Amino acid sequence: MRTHLYRGEERIVIGVVGGAQRLNQEAVRQLPGVDRLVPITRPYKLASREFIPEKSSFRLGEVRVGGPGLLIIAGPCSVESRSQILEVAQAVRESGAHALRGGAFKPRTSPYSFQGLGQEGLELLAEARALFGLPIVTEVMAPEQVPLVAQFADVLQIGARNMQNFNLLNAAGASQQPVLLKRGPSATIEDLLMSAEYILAQGNRRIMLCERGIRTFENATRNTTDINAIPALGSLTHLPVILDPSHSTGEAGFVEAIALAGVAAGADGLIIEVHPKPKEALSDGQQSLTPDQFARLVRSVQAIAEALGRASQVSL
Amino acid sequence: MRTHLYRGEERIVIGVVGGAQRLNQEAVRQLPGVDRLVPITRPYKLASREFIPEKSSFRLGEVRVGGPGLLIIAGPCSVESRSQILEVAQAVRESGAHALRGGAFKPRTSPYSFQGLGQEGLELLAEARALFGLPIVTEVMAPEQVPLVAQFADVLQIGARNMQNFNLLNAAGASQQPVLLKRGPSATIEDLLMSAEYILAQGNRRIMLCERGIRTFENATRNTTDINAIPALGSLTHLPVILDPSHSTGEAGFVEAIALAGVAAGADGLIIEVHPKPKEALSDGQQSLTPDQFARLVRSVQAIAEALGRASQVSL
Amino acid sequence: MRTHLYRGEERIVIGVVGGAQRLNQEAVRQLPGVDRLVPITRPYKLASREFIPEKSSFRLGEVRVGGPGLLIIAGPCSVESRSQILEVAQAVRESGAHALRGGAFKPRTSPYSFQGLGQEGLELLAEARALFGLPIVTEVMAPEQVPLVAQFADVLQIGARNMQNFNLLNAAGASQQPVLLKRGPSATIEDLLMSAEYILAQGNRRIMLCERGIRTFENATRNTTDINAIPALGSLTHLPVILDPSHSTGEAGFVEAIALAGVAAGADGLIIEVHPKPKEALSDGQQSLTPDQFARLVRSVQAIAEALGRASQVSL
Amino acid sequence: MRTHLYRGEERIVIGVVGGAQRLNQEAVRQLPGVDRLVPITRPYKLASREFIPEKSSFRLGEVRVGGPGLLIIAGPCSVESRSQILEVAQAVRESGAHALRGGAFKPRTSPYSFQGLGQEGLELLAEARALFGLPIVTEVMAPEQVPLVAQFADVLQIGARNMQNFNLLNAAGASQQPVLLKRGPSATIEDLLMSAEYILAQGNRRIMLCERGIRTFENATRNTTDINAIPALGSLTHLPVILDPSHSTGEAGFVEAIALAGVAAGADGLIIEVHPKPKEALSDGQQSLTPDQFARLVRSVQAIAEALGRASQVSL
Repeated sequence: MRTHLYRGEERIVIGVVGGAQRLNQEAVRQLPGVDRLVPITRPYKLASREFIPEKSSFRLGEVRVGGPGLLIIAGPCSVESRSQILEVAQAVRESGAHALRGGAFKPRTSPYSFQGLGQEGLELLAEARALFGLPIVTEVMAPEQVPLVAQFADVLQIGARNMQNFNLLNAAGASQQPVLLKRGPSATIEDLLMSAEYILAQGNRRIMLCERGIRTFENATRNTTDINAIPALGSLTHLPVILDPSHSTGEAGFVEAIALAGVAAGADGLIIEVHPKPKEALSDGQQSLTPDQFARLVRSVQAIAEALGRASQVSL
Repeated sequence: MRTHLYRGEERIVIGVVGGAQRLNQEAVRQLPGVDRLVPITRPYKLASREFIPEKSSFRLGEVRVGGPGLLIIAGPCSVESRSQILEVAQAVRESGAHALRGGAFKPRTSPYSFQGLGQEGLELLAEARALFGLPIVTEVMAPEQVPLVAQFADVLQIGARNMQNFNLLNAAGASQQPVLLKRGPSATIEDLLMSAEYILAQGNRRIMLCERGIRTFENATRNTTDINAIPALGSLTHLPVILDPSHSTGEAGFVEAIALAGVAAGADGLIIEVHPKPKEALSDGQQSLTPDQFARLVRSVQAIAEALGRASQVSL
Repeated sequence: MRTHLYRGEERIVIGVVGGAQRLNQEAVRQLPGVDRLVPITRPYKLASREFIPEKSSFRLGEVRVGGPGLLIIAGPCSVESRSQILEVAQAVRESGAHALRGGAFKPRTSPYSFQGLGQEGLELLAEARALFGLPIVTEVMAPEQVPLVAQFADVLQIGARNMQNFNLLNAAGASQQPVLLKRGPSATIEDLLMSAEYILAQGNRRIMLCERGIRTFENATRNTTDINAIPALGSLTHLPVILDPSHSTGEAGFVEAIALAGVAAGADGLIIEVHPKPKEALSDGQQSLTPDQFARLVRSVQAIAEALGRASQVSL
Repeated sequence: MRTHLYRGEERIVIGVVGGAQRLNQEAVRQLPGVDRLVPITRPYKLASREFIPEKSSFRLGEVRVGGPGLLIIAGPCSVESRSQILEVAQAVRESGAHALRGGAFKPRTSPYSFQGLGQEGLELLAEARALFGLPIVTEVMAPEQVPLVAQFADVLQIGARNMQNFNLLNAAGASQQPVLLKRGPSATIEDLLMSAEYILAQGNRRIMLCERGIRTFENATRNTTDINAIPALGSLTHLPVILDPSHSTGEAGFVEAIALAGVAAGADGLIIEVHPKPKEALSDGQQSLTPDQFARLVRSVQAIAEALGRASQVSL
């Protein structure tokens, strides 16, 4: 068995998980300082509100993920060139983004599609961070890539198709880096929380979950945004939840509407694809916003956040 | 073939649909007053933005459906008693609802469940309208019920499970009453528009479409709110679109979050289940709000509508 | 409350359903002749194996639906003309079909598509029956059509999109005619059984259920054949279950493979679309077999049925 | 660009894939020995019937995968102990299985579930092979595990949740070992073929695809067997296709019916979970057959295969 400590404002909770044999409950109850022993009924333990009732949060650059303000991550699907990533970084920084996304290792359905710039892409992201001060969110695709990616990234992104790549979850957990965990297109909310549990079980609590659309019969849009997942996750887990309206709609024309919907539904943040010239993008051009469209989106998001009494994100 | 006239602000459009043989295009082009002849490429014709580019709207009681303001319909799942419906009607009227919903004929999965009060329910709804001035929205389940229901209702609701009951669509269309057409749980957006087309083909344009959740693999919530459908329908059709967060979530605790999301995404209105004592409701208690919860929801909705520059609904 | 009598080989079962108040169990137990009182835990009662443990069967023309042999229903999607329906009827009769299908009232997604010949279609089906001796299976779309259709049809078909048209289920049940009830494209197995319960609750037990494919994310085929439903229904209900591989695949080239799969999985029968010239069909040409393809399918089906020790269907 | 050679019976095909720039078609056409240049329209190239029109097959132990006979793989979900795996191996060998399955590295939804015996499990599988002569099929979960697993396994299994783990696909492809590629629960048929393309692009053609059920709204069974995928894949690809009715139903009582359905629909083989004591299994007990149930299944499968004119599998 392994213990997990949580220091809440009113009490200290010690989570005890794993192990084939049952806990000797009576013996534990009689230990000094033990007030109560509460079995967690959900299959996920450390991820549950039963273990940690308050919302979790952690610092990322100048902002707090899971805090009262909204987190806005923006950037291109893939890092394509030095000029592209620097141009986007500057633009989204000016519009109000708090972190920069960009793929260096790209999971692509076809082996013949652009697979990302690899380490060169990571170095370009690091350069953008140095110039514009935005923390970097980028995807890691395999356990053996974790050390390399963790060297450059502020947040390790685990993509939707790797949500149940358990070796990768373990490696990302063990890295103790913040993790952005995307929901798989056919993963239930419980599946998502079980995958988060893998990371938490490694002692890593800096996780944000990301709804990015699920696969349904509807094909008018690329995916179906499971907007219900925002309040549903909020009731089940203490982990912050962000929305990726770019993937969840697949259509630039719908991104702002769904971004606003996500904020209205209570999301802790957004991750948005932005490209200087969407039509020339090597991947996901159809769903990428121009910097101008992104700037407009941020203004609308701020208006809604204020109407709901949520501070738009401010410096710590 | 049958013609459908639309008088737009800049031009008059005559829709010509039906008929097995092809139109003699050359002959039509040479008729006096004909500027252009435009084939509509979508399978739905009268429902498409190609036929009517502006948003359609129609008057309902003191408000305009599809206008700049939001329409809020509220009331119990089923009319259960005189005191119940009058209590709800008064409460939702005071909180700001514009129309009253309530089922008299109830489609129930089980033949042993409460099937509604029938005509008595309709009479109680009429009494509530007389007392509180709210137009009535109520479901009609079969073609032969249309004359009876149309006698009492201001809006004929066609339920999700009857969305492709084509005989009913024809009858509702022919009644020339306003229709609230709910999307079936496995209907695509195109299916929904094809069903609206049945009503439009009868010359009845006073239709509002309603997203009420689709059936997916996710079972953490009763249905999956297809929030993408709001902007997607907005781009494809001129018909107003409302959201039913009560059915689309199935959980009272999530209704407000999803109602706000719907407004943020651009819905023209909401339909919300309200019951004085949800735990004692004969149907859908799990997803019904109390009058107090509803009042709070309306206030939040108004705040968001204002932040988005949309007037909250006002008298005509 | 209403009682339903079932005379089994070993005991007589009296089903008691409906009613808002609880049964006085003690009083019932003390009635003369009462051996046991067994609550049925499933939401469907009369449809459950708990009520009737043996497989139900009923006679249709020269064969028995739900008996040891297989039922094969074949014919065109729509009755299009006298020559078409007579040609198909003769061909499928010669190949070994036991009943003729053909739509006179057609539920079509578009109001502008061919809607069927109506009563004229019914009369042509009756003529085909008179000439070739095949019982007729045809769809009824609305409660008020039931008397007309029942006058011509041996089996009333309730289509997938009407599976939860409860007024129609009640009317078909009350007609006491055999009913072929198709599963809706997004109906669960439990939903299907609840709809059968409506018919059973009217005292009508001559029902066959039909799996015709469900709607999923996969679009390589028109629908997804839920082959699991065959053994799953077999374990839950006593009602016979047939498969419609024409709709469940939507592709003539896959119909035979899936028909064989259905028989191998334990289906009680098949319903197959056959058209003399599929490319000229007014509906469903893509999934219709030619008479020759159908003849080949029947031979393969018989080979499998024999290998599984099931008599191919013989005269009563 | 990279070339892939296929020597068919009538012609030699050279596949040319990859590369950002377009092929100089005219130059290629004029090379000596070139008859025709055919663009492949599908997104998957090497996997398509357009590239290789004949069914592919390869030898595995004493049988041929993709040959006229059926391949039957059987064994426990997880290797749990020496006695367990040897007992199952002997039993399934005697009943007619051609290969032994068993998990040593187990992808589990929960981090607290049994994760497999790891290398010890691989060694036990090797011992079973030595004793009973069955080739071994076992899962590999991460690229860095490939060399270890390939040292013990005759077939590398890539699990459903790793179907789009592209680094793993590349590593398995590069190993040049036979691969059993399972379809992901929300993967389309095209997605599956794109994943196979990753392996093929590494020059590895010994692949069998495996339908193991997809995720849909239906929850009466663990997954929905996409039986349509059997003929659909058969029409699109030359790769052999097998069915896993244990996972595709999740219910031991339905496995035989669906196994038979798979064979009737044209599957090239089956993979079946067998455990000496299903109720005590550390994983998947609900869907595991006893050795006796498996023996009965094999007899039924053979009867159907013979009825369809397919030799049951014989020695090479």
